[in-house]
Order: sequence, then C-alpha cells, then structure tokens
Amino acid sequence: MPPEAPLLYEDVATHVASLIERGALRAGDRLPSVRRFARERDVSVATVLAAYRQLENRELIETRPKSGHFVRARAQLAPALRRPKPIAPAPAKVTVSDGVATLVASMRDSSVVPLGAAHLHPELYPIRAINRLLAGIVRDTATAGAAYEVSPGLLTLRRQLARRSLMWGMSLGEDDFVITSGAMEAMHLALRVTLRPGDSVAVSSPTYFGILHLIEDMGLRAVEIPSHPDRGMDIDALQLALRRTKIRGVVAIPNFDNPSGALMPYESRVRLAGLLERHDIPLIEDDIYGDLAWDNSRPSPIKALDRAGRVLLCGSTSKTIAAGYRVGWIVPGRYAERVERLKFSQSVATSTLEQMAIAEYLSSGAYDRHLRTLRSKLATQVRAFREAIAASFPAGTSVSNPSGGFLLWVELPSSIDALQLQAEAGRRGIAIAPGPIFAAGNRYKSCIRINCGFPWSPAISNAVRTLGELATRLAKNGGSHG
Amino acid sequence: MPPEAPLLYEDVATHVASLIERGALRAGDRLPSVRRFARERDVSVATVLAAYRQLENRELIETRPKSGHFVRARAQLAPALRRPKPIAPAPAKVTVSDGVATLVASMRDSSVVPLGAAHLHPELYPIRAINRLLAGIVRDTATAGAAYEVSPGLLTLRRQLARRSLMWGMSLGEDDFVITSGAMEAMHLALRVTLRPGDSVAVSSPTYFGILHLIEDMGLRAVEIPSHPDRGMDIDALQLALRRTKIRGVVAIPNFDNPSGALMPYESRVRLAGLLERHDIPLIEDDIYGDLAWDNSRPSPIKALDRAGRVLLCGSTSKTIAAGYRVGWIVPGRYAERVERLKFSQSVATSTLEQMAIAEYLSSGAYDRHLRTLRSKLATQVRAFREAIAASFPAGTSVSNPSGGFLLWVELPSSIDALQLQAEAGRRGIAIAPGPIFAAGNRYKSCIRINCGFPWSPAISNAVRTLGELATRLAKNGGSHG
Repeated sequence: MPPEAPLLYEDVATHVASLIERGALRAGDRLPSVRRFARERDVSVATVLAAYRQLENRELIETRPKSGHFVRARAQLAPALRRPKPIAPAPAKVTVSDGVATLVASMRDSSVVPLGAAHLHPELYPIRAINRLLAGIVRDTATAGAAYEVSPGLLTLRRQLARRSLMWGMSLGEDDFVITSGAMEAMHLALRVTLRPGDSVAVSSPTYFGILHLIEDMGLRAVEIPSHPDRGMDIDALQLALRRTKIRGVVAIPNFDNPSGALMPYESRVRLAGLLERHDIPLIEDDIYGDLAWDNSRPSPIKALDRAGRVLLCGSTSKTIAAGYRVGWIVPGRYAERVERLKFSQSVATSTLEQMAIAEYLSSGAYDRHLRTLRSKLATQVRAFREAIAASFPAGTSVSNPSGGFLLWVELPSSIDALQLQAEAGRRGIAIAPGPIFAAGNRYKSCIRINCGFPWSPAISNAVRTLGELATRLAKNGGSHG
Repeated sequence: MPPEAPLLYEDVATHVASLIERGALRAGDRLPSVRRFARERDVSVATVLAAYRQLENRELIETRPKSGHFVRARAQLAPALRRPKPIAPAPAKVTVSDGVATLVASMRDSSVVPLGAAHLHPELYPIRAINRLLAGIVRDTATAGAAYEVSPGLLTLRRQLARRSLMWGMSLGEDDFVITSGAMEAMHLALRVTLRPGDSVAVSSPTYFGILHLIEDMGLRAVEIPSHPDRGMDIDALQLALRRTKIRGVVAIPNFDNPSGALMPYESRVRLAGLLERHDIPLIEDDIYGDLAWDNSRPSPIKALDRAGRVLLCGSTSKTIAAGYRVGWIVPGRYAERVERLKFSQSVATSTLEQMAIAEYLSSGAYDRHLRTLRSKLATQVRAFREAIAASFPAGTSVSNPSGGFLLWVELPSSIDALQLQAEAGRRGIAIAPGPIFAAGNRYKSCIRINCGFPWSPAISNAVRTLGELATRLAKNGGSHG
C-alpha cells in the first residue's frame, strides 16, 4: 500500500479549498458532481465524497438536497484567519511568559469556566467504561499494579497500538512503540534524544507553550516557522530557514495543530518529509489530536511517509480516553534504543494498571464507536463557540476554522492586549489562553486560544459573551490599562 | 524541636561502631549498661536503647539475656566491606555500560530469578488493600481519573505526605510537595532545575546507575566521591573535592544507599549540610529507602537539617506500597516554582487514580502497620541472602551489612569479572547487577549488587548457590574467558 493512499482525499479537498481561496470558485458556484469529479481526476468516488465532506465540515461548501454541492458564502462575522506575517527565521532563545502559570493554576480550580487549558469535560471521555475495566483488572488479579511495567511498556498495549496503526496509514509492530506517561513525556524524550543544548530546532509559530518551555529548559534555540491557520507550518518558510540556518530538528503538530487547529495538507507533508531526508534531520511529531477529525477520516501522521526512521511520532489517550490515566506513546524510529533507555532512567515505567485498562479498552472495539460520538460532539461544540464568538466579539475579530480537535485560535483587533484580557477574564472566573504564550518572541499579543472541550451550556454561553464584552471594551480603550 | 533530635541515637551507634572498628572494643567485650551509658553521655535511655538496637541489627553487638550487650565476633565468612580506595576527585564524563540494558530486560522476564534490579516481590506490597481502595474510588466516583491532576498534584495526597513528614523529623506543609511519577522523575526534575550542561556534580561512588545515566544524558560531569559501605559518602573526600573543583551540586542517598546499603551517620549529615551552606550548592537527596529501617527507627533525611531550601528531597511509594503505581514526590525547597512548572511541561501530571488511592491508603493508618511487617520481612530476607552468600561464595568475598532496605553489595575476589558473571548467570536464568554500572569510571569490576527483595525460597537458594559456584569457577580461572 503506497503511503499516500489514505491522505488522497485531503489533497483533493486542499485543491478545491485553494480554488475557493483564490476566487476561482465563488460563493454560490456549483461544484462538479462527485461522479464527474472522480472520472475527470481519476480518483475514487469515495475519495471525492470524503473530500467534499471535509470541505463541508470546514464550512467552505454546502450540500443542497437534490441539487449538489455549492461554495458557501463565508461566515461574515467570523472570517477565517489571515495568512500570517513572515517571521525572520533566526534562532531565538526561548522564554515562556508567566501567562502559563495562570493557565495551569486555572486547571485546578473547578469554579473557573475552562476556556483556557486544552482539556475535555470528564463526561466526554468513556471514563465509566474504562474505570469498570480497571476495577475488573484489580478484582481478577489481586496483585496487579504491584510491579513496574518497565520501558518499553506493557506488551498487550503495544500490540493494540500496533493494530491501530493500520488506521493511521501505517503498519507498525509492537516493538516500534515505547509507552510513556502521556504525549508530553514522549515529546520530551524525543527532544532529548535528538537535540543537544545550543542546537536550533524549527517549530511552528504559534505553537503549544509546553513545547516552547521544554525547548527553553533544554537550552535549545527555536527557529519559528510561520503557521497558517488552515495549512499549518509554512513549508516554503521552513525550506528557506533550513537553507539559512543549521537546524537540527523540526517539531510539528500536523493533525489539528495546537493552537491553530490547522490540518497540514498532504502536499506539505510530502515536502516536509523530503526536507527531513535532504537535511538528514529528525521530525518530532505530536499527533495527540489525530483521532479527532470531525468527518471520521483519520489523517495519517507524517510518520507514514517516513522511510528512514527519522520521525519520532508521539501520541496519547489524554484527548480521547482519559487525561488522568497518563498513557501515551512514542514511535521513536531510529532512536528507539536511546528513547527506551532514557524513559527508564527518567521515570522507570508508566503506571501499570492504566496500561492494562487502556489495552483492554482498545481491544474491546468500543473505542471506534466512542470516537464517532466524540468527534460529532466536538464538531457541534466548536461550532457553537464559533457562532457565539462571531456574535459577541468586536468587529475585526477573526477565528480559525478547524476540521478537527477542540481548539479555536482567535485574532482580536490589534488594540487589544490578550494578557490584559486574560487578567480581566480571570477576575470574572473565566480562563483563556493568551496568544503570547504560544511564541518564543513577543508575538500574538492580540490573539487568544479558546478551549471548546466542554459542552455548550448557559455558563459557557455567558462566559463567551462576557469575553466579548471585555474585548469590546479593551478595543475601545485602545488597550489602555483602565 | 531541634532538627538533630531524631537522629541522636544514630550518632551514639556510630560512635560505638567506630570504637569497635578501631579495635577499642573487641569481640566479647561488654558494653556499658543502657542506664550507665545514658547517665555518662547525658542522653536518654530511649536513645541508648535505639542505638544498641541498631548496632544489634548491624550485627556488631548482641544481647545476652540477663547479662547485657556484648561486641559480637564478626561473621567470619561474610566480612563487612573494606574501606574503599580513594578516587581522584576529577570531573568525568559519564558513560553507563550496557550491563544496564541486560538488567532492565531481566525485569520483563518472569522466568528469571530476580536478583538484579532493585524491586520487591508483589506480595510484599499492601497491593490488595490499595487495589481495593482504587476499585472503591472508581465505584464511588464514576468519572474519577478523567481529568488531569496537574502539577503540583493532588491536594489530599500532599496533605498526607505533609503529615508523614513529622516522622521524618520535619514539619513540611502540603505546599512544600510536588507529586511526581516516582522518585526518578523527582530526581530528574531536581537535576534539571539545579544544574546546566557541563556543570560538575558530586555523586557517591558506587551509586545507582539511573542517576549516572541522567547525569550522562544531561551532559553533566560526575565527580565521584568514595562511599563507605557503612557510612555512605566520604565527607572528607567531598570537602576536598569541593575545594579543588567547581562543583555545582551533590547527589546522595543517605538512607540505605543504593547499592551500598549504607546509612550515613548523623555527624556526616551535619557536615554535609554545612558544606552545602558554605559553598551555596544544592543537594539532590534520594530518600526512597528511608522508610525501610529494619529497627523501625525512621532516619531523617538531610532535608531535616536544611534551613535555606537548598535540599531537594525526592521520595516515592515504589519500594513500600506499589511500584506499578508510579507515585513519588519532590520537596524542592527554593526551586519550587521551576520544579512545578517543569513537571507540567515534561509530563503534565501524575496518574490521578493512583494519587487518590495512595492518599486514602496513607490516611487509613494501615501504612505504619504494613511498614513494621515489611521491615521485619526484609531484615529476615537479607539475612538469609547474606548467610547463603557466606556459605557458597569463594573465599575473599565480602558483603555489605546494611540495617535497612533490601540490597546487598558484594565484593568478589579481584580475579572475577562481574560482567562475565552477569552473562554466565544470565544464561542460567539468574539476574544480578554488575558493579561497573554503578560508577562513571571503570570501577567495581569485581563487585555485584544482589536484590534481596524477593522472599527466600528454594529457587532463590539454588540461584545463590549457582552464583557462588560460577564465581568460584571464575575466581579459579583468574577471570579468563573460558
């Protein structure tokens, strides 16, 4: 099976989206019928259907019963984000702002409306089912959990993950995995085995603050590559940076990027994989949102294009099964031996019982059923957030338009200071993630990330309205501290 | 309460032990009566009793009914270890040998006789009780475990640990703790926040190979300080090294050191604390064996002497409650903010359910009852191992004589190559830990560490005998590869 097969429909969707973006297709235009498109482009009907479904989820096209597919009028109040300004690709020492501390503290306070950290409402997880499995495990084996389940981790769990890798467009073996305490331990191990202090590493800008903090703590230098809200890391900019600077590795979140929500198009993935090969550098790939494509079309990781073991794929069950279980993994490719050993030295093992429960859950077949429900709920939730933001935020606000995950990236009018908005929202019991924590330099001062991981409710509706009012006031005051 | 109070009896024991060591007290000599000793030295009767009990556990003295306490004839076949040769205190780049990989692999094979890694038999843990608590937690709160329990970790657990700190000779508060995934994550965080690549750090020699691997991986330089099997790190040597070299931190395991089993005397602790103060450097203190004093007298960590927050105390429940639960902690002192934040970035959180179960277990009061049983079992087990080693190992073998924990450090005749012994034992299904993995330089070639964490059994008895035969053969062959 050629590695590109599972991603073909994304390519088609990207192609159509770019036609819309460039104005070649306009609001109201009718798209070719699925059959005609399939015939003309020599792809399967299923591929075109999947592509159209994705475009629909991205609100670029709409289906009119008995008439076909049409280009939608863009949501006026919540336009998609503009293409980002280029960033000079110079390595920068990283200092993550104190906005992070406020954000993390908010996770411990259940009275706060949780629009800050990227986490899900407990009821969205299959937590009852998995807790029942856990209780069954300790009932059946009284001494379960006593012993270390040392690196590389529980065999039955690695076996289940290997099976699932088929759905990721790969065919990994149980020995390709090392179990970790969540994806962040995996990312940290990946950074540690591939880079040395002083090395430059290319990261998307904006990107998840936890990655920036690890880069800072390890004494690495971040080369920030602009990230497009629809397409993710700008591969032209990466290529340029690789030519200009000695870059030793790349970190990316190609599937529903945090914070932008972008799904990197297939063409960019192929180019990125080629660049890794040409420059002989590793990619540290964070795939924690990969299972959360709203249209049920699981995008492959870039790892699927990796022939030489240069990609270290990091995943987790924290965004899909249970955050508190702390079960993640890494597929470290050519760095396997060092990762396995470093995992042992850094934390010896991941919790035994949780590994057992997740393995049983994955083998039960319930996971795929759960995913379908979860994806549909998240799509609905994020849509509700988007509409509410469009209704209550000041003019000039633009919002990302993801097709998976549960995060929105919001660009506010430039007179608004996101850190000030975070502080004022915090006083009203609302957590948000301010833009500046997602960059090494002093960027995204007027951006915020909104967590849509909690079901839409009156409390959340009120919170979004309050945020809109605060933002409107700050916009009028020109961001002055009044 | 002066910090030295809980340790006074150790000081007395050390004093008497040194009299025996120097020959001032000889085999068969009668010690002063407890009352007379107490009166003359101006200490309490309880202190003298505790000191005599410790000396008894160390097999230095014996109680004869109705006669009093007498200096014992040293066990002839298993003499205590010799004072170590001095090590030139030059910073060394660390490379941990591949003996570690063999050792870790042996932990995953239940058919291997587990004398290698430092782990306990599952039945020695209160695993049934704690698994019942865990099952009760998920029964009572169906969504427990869904959410992250972010850094610094579960409040109720930190509260229980704060209460227990009274028994460690301290009075810590719940905010002094950050929960970690075992003590090794704690140690790693401690190294990361106190030291930078290229820094020199003083470590005991021999010391736990996991610490050496972290030092190697972080690009630190190890200054090896000889460790005495009875007294732990040689403080004279440390003082000298601090004068000669720019040392940025110290790592120590003062309570039942791994691998030597040494309990650092109170006098050395006071001197070490003074050196930290004078040189303004941190101590990374591993206290995972602290609860395992066979005479039930819990030695205080050096942290109890720390006034300025320079000591980062690392602990865990892996050697006492359940290894597979992965619950540990750090008391990071003045480094609290950085530790808390780095823990978040490196692994976000420790497993929620395990934190809840351990908190409930500690609050139940069952832990102290369990500890008394466990300590007595370990004392019996280690004694059985010691006697069996004495009976079957070649002449010239010496064995450590710990008073807590479950590890023995064995010095074989110098013609024996421990790595060769490991390989031959491995072929016979017996794991051991070879000496060279416990040092940065090429040291301890003829030493091995024996795990006594599994109850004495015919299989273990056979394994020790086989080891003795293998060692005897290797000794005769002069270590040749035949």
